Amino acid sequence: MRSDGKIPVDGLLTRADHVLTCDASFRVFSPGAVAFHRGTIVAVGPCSELEERYAAKETWSLQGHLLLPGLVNTHVHAAMSLFRGVGDDLPLHHWLHERIFPAESRFVRPQFVHLGTLLSCVEMVLGGTTTFCDGYFFEESAADAAERIGMRAVLGQGVLNFPTPDVPDPARIADRVAAFLESFSRRPSRLTPSLFCHAPYSCTPETLQWAKDLCRDHGLLFQIHVSETAWEVQEIQSRYGRSPVRLLKDLGILDKRTLCAHAVWVDEEEIQILAQTRAGVSHSLESNLKLASGIAPLPAMIGAGIPIGLGTDGCASNNDLDLFSEMSLAAKIHKAAFDDPTVCSARQVLLMATQGGARALGLGGIIGSLEVGKRADLVAVDMDQAHLTPLYDPVSHLVYAARSSDVRHVWVDGVPIVRDGTVQNLDVSQVLGEARTLARKIRTALFQP
Amino acid sequence: MRSDGKIPVDGLLTRADHVLTCDASFRVFSPGAVAFHRGTIVAVGPCSELEERYAAKETWSLQGHLLLPGLVNTHVHAAMSLFRGVGDDLPLHHWLHERIFPAESRFVRPQFVHLGTLLSCVEMVLGGTTTFCDGYFFEESAADAAERIGMRAVLGQGVLNFPTPDVPDPARIADRVAAFLESFSRRPSRLTPSLFCHAPYSCTPETLQWAKDLCRDHGLLFQIHVSETAWEVQEIQSRYGRSPVRLLKDLGILDKRTLCAHAVWVDEEEIQILAQTRAGVSHSLESNLKLASGIAPLPAMIGAGIPIGLGTDGCASNNDLDLFSEMSLAAKIHKAAFDDPTVCSARQVLLMATQGGARALGLGGIIGSLEVGKRADLVAVDMDQAHLTPLYDPVSHLVYAARSSDVRHVWVDGVPIVRDGTVQNLDVSQVLGEARTLARKIRTALFQP
Repeated sequence: MRSDGKIPVDGLLTRADHVLTCDASFRVFSPGAVAFHRGTIVAVGPCSELEERYAAKETWSLQGHLLLPGLVNTHVHAAMSLFRGVGDDLPLHHWLHERIFPAESRFVRPQFVHLGTLLSCVEMVLGGTTTFCDGYFFEESAADAAERIGMRAVLGQGVLNFPTPDVPDPARIADRVAAFLESFSRRPSRLTPSLFCHAPYSCTPETLQWAKDLCRDHGLLFQIHVSETAWEVQEIQSRYGRSPVRLLKDLGILDKRTLCAHAVWVDEEEIQILAQTRAGVSHSLESNLKLASGIAPLPAMIGAGIPIGLGTDGCASNNDLDLFSEMSLAAKIHKAAFDDPTVCSARQVLLMATQGGARALGLGGIIGSLEVGKRADLVAVDMDQAHLTPLYDPVSHLVYAARSSDVRHVWVDGVPIVRDGTVQNLDVSQVLGEARTLARKIRTALFQP
Repeated sequence: MRSDGKIPVDGLLTRADHVLTCDASFRVFSPGAVAFHRGTIVAVGPCSELEERYAAKETWSLQGHLLLPGLVNTHVHAAMSLFRGVGDDLPLHHWLHERIFPAESRFVRPQFVHLGTLLSCVEMVLGGTTTFCDGYFFEESAADAAERIGMRAVLGQGVLNFPTPDVPDPARIADRVAAFLESFSRRPSRLTPSLFCHAPYSCTPETLQWAKDLCRDHGLLFQIHVSETAWEVQEIQSRYGRSPVRLLKDLGILDKRTLCAHAVWVDEEEIQILAQTRAGVSHSLESNLKLASGIAPLPAMIGAGIPIGLGTDGCASNNDLDLFSEMSLAAKIHKAAFDDPTVCSARQVLLMATQGGARALGLGGIIGSLEVGKRADLVAVDMDQAHLTPLYDPVSHLVYAARSSDVRHVWVDGVPIVRDGTVQNLDVSQVLGEARTLARKIRTALFQP
C-alpha cells in the first residue's frame, strides 16, 4: 500500500470501450479496466474503480479499443509457414507426395523449425494470438522461437511409426521423446511439452498407448489428428473394425488431457464418447475446407458440451494463422451447413477462441478469460475504423467484422509483446529476410529439380 | 514526344514485384509496370521497357508490392453499413421483421443513404475495391457518395411492388425511376444507373417486364435477387408453377445485361439456362452462409461458363465488405462442399473478383484486367509482411493469405483515391463521427423503444 492508499501494480489497462471477460457469466465492462501484477490479473472491472484503487508502473489508456483475453490457437504446425503456398488446389495425394513430403524430408532441420516457428509467432501475435498448441518435429527449436517472442505455447513433439526428419529410425522414438521432455526443465513455465501422435493410421496401437502413458505420467497433453478425412475413417475401420474415435476410446487414449484435432467425420455416438471422456477438440475449419476434408458437426459437438477450441492448422493447408478469419467463418458456415441461422452464435465462437481453447489444452485454470488470478494474457483491438463503425454489439463486431490487422497491443504474462502493431524485442525484417533466403532453396528444389 | 524521346504520361507504376494482369491469357510480369494517361492504361509490361519509353508526371516505385486490377464487388446494399451488427444469429423472420424492416422504415432517408454509402465506400476502397454494384433506395444519394470518394459504381434503384422508403405508394414507381434516371445526365461516366427489382416474389411479372424493358431501352444493367433461399424457390413454384430462373427466362428477363444475385438454389438445367442467356451471377457467399441460405453450386456455374463475380451483399447480412475474405472463402468452401480439392482454384477466384465481376456487370470492355485501352483502376498490395512471407506463388498468396488491410494504394481512372492506406480528399473521422451519432438514434429506436 502506498501513502496515497493505492495498491502498486505493474500494469493498468483502462478506459477500454468494452472489456469482454469471456468468463463463465460472460461479463462485459463498458468502459472497463484490467490491472495486473507479476503477470497475474489482480482486478477486472469499471475504470473508475480500478483507477482509484491501483497505481501502476505503466498505465495504458485504451479509448476506442476493445479488451479481451488473448486468443488460443489449438492446432498449428508452426514451422510450416515456410511452405505457405507451395501447393494449392491439388489432389491430396499429389499435394502430400509431390510437395509437402519431399520438402519436409529435404529441409526440416532444427534451424528450419526455429525460423519457421518464429515467422509464425510474428503472424500470430500480430493477430492477437497469445497461446498456440503446436505439433511438429525438432520441437525444442519451436520452443526456442516461442520463448524468444514471449508467447505461451504447448509444444507437441511428433510421434510416428514412420521415419521422420528428427527420428529417421522409428525404433529410436523413446530416446528422442526422453531428450525432448528433459529439455523443458530449463524453460519458462508458459512453455509446456506435449506429445503429438500423428494419427491412428500412422501410429500403431502400441505406440499410441505408450505415448499416452508417458503423457499421463508427466501430466502432459496428448495430441492426435482424429477422423480428419473420410479416407481415414474407412482405413481405420478396415484395419481395426471400428472408427477412429471408438478405437481411441477402446485403447484408453481419450480423457481430458487428450486433444483431438479435426474430428470432422464423427457420428452422434462418437460425439457422446468425446463428451463423456471429456476429450477436447480442435476445430480447424479453413484447413478442412481447403483440403476438401469436410465440415465437422460443430453445433452438435457444442451441444454435447465438448471442450472445443479453434485451430488454424499449418500454413501448408490453410494458408494463414488468423483466428479472426477462423472465428468469422465458424460463426457463418455451420448456419448454412446445418440450415439454421441461430447456431454457432458470435458469443459461442468467441468463447471457443478463448476459454474453450484454453480448456481443450488443459489450461482453463490459468488462461482463456479475464479473471482475477489468471495470467495476464490480453489483446486490445482498435475499433476506430470504418469497417467497425458504427458499433451496436462488440461481440458481433469482433466475430463478424473485425480483422487480425485491427489488433494493436498484445500482452502475455503482463508483458507487452506487441505495442502499436509492432512486435517488441525482435527484428521482424531480419526474420522475413532469412525466410526469403531459405525459400529460394526450397523453390529451386521443388520446382526446378 | 519529348526531346528525350519519351512519351509523356500521367502515371507510371513501376518495379512492382508482380503485375497480375488478369487478362485472357493471365499474363504476369515479375517485376512489372503499368503506364496510364488521362485515366486510360497505355502500357503494361516489364519495368525496364516502360521506364525507358514513358516520362510520367508521377512515378510510383512499388518494390515489395503486387499490382492487380481493382476488385469488383458485384452485389452490395452499401448504405446498410449503418445497420452492421443490429441483428445476428437470429431466425430469418425475426431478423427481418424485428430488426431490418423497422430500422429501414424509420431511418432510411437520402441523408442516411449518403452517409451509409460513404462509410461503405471508405471500407471498400481501403480493401482494394474500385467498383461496386449497388441496390437500395434513394440511389441518387448513393451516387453522390461514390462520386465524392471517386469510385466506379453501378447504382441500382430499388423497385418493388410494396411501399418502400422512397416510394411509399408503389403505383408511383415509374415517376421515381424516371427522376432517378434523369439525375444521371449530370454524373461522371464512371457512375451508371441501373434498376434493381428486389426479387421474383416481391415484384409482379408485369413490374419485372416493365423494368427490364426500361433497362433495355436505356442500355442499363437489370439486377434481381434470384433463388437466394429454398423458401423463395418453393414460393415461386407454388405461385407460378416453375422455379425463379425458369420464370425469369419465360418472362424474357434473362440476357447479358441481367445480373442474378445469389443463385444459390439452381439445378443443372437452370445453370444451363443462365449460361445460354448469358445472364451474370453475383456469388455472395458470406451472406449466404450467415443467413443459412445455402451454398451455391459455384463449380458447376464456372464450368457452364456463366459470367460470375463476387459480391459481399450488405453489412446487415455479412457483416463486412471485404472481397479478400470472400476470395479466400470461395476458393476453400466449394472444395469441401463438393468433395474436390481442385475446384475453384486461386486463379479462378481471382478472376471472378476482377474480370468475371466486370463481365457480369457489363463492364468487361472497360475494367477487370490490366490491358491497354482499359480504365486505370488498380490496386497495389504490400507483400512485405510476415503472413505473406515467403512467397512462392503471388496468386496463391493473394487469395489464400492476403488481407484487405494489406492494400496500400488504389487508383480509379488513374486517380489515386487511396495512398499509403489513407483515403484521399475525405475526412474519414468526420464520416465515422456522423455514423456514430446516427447509430445512437437507431440503437435507441431498436433496442429501447
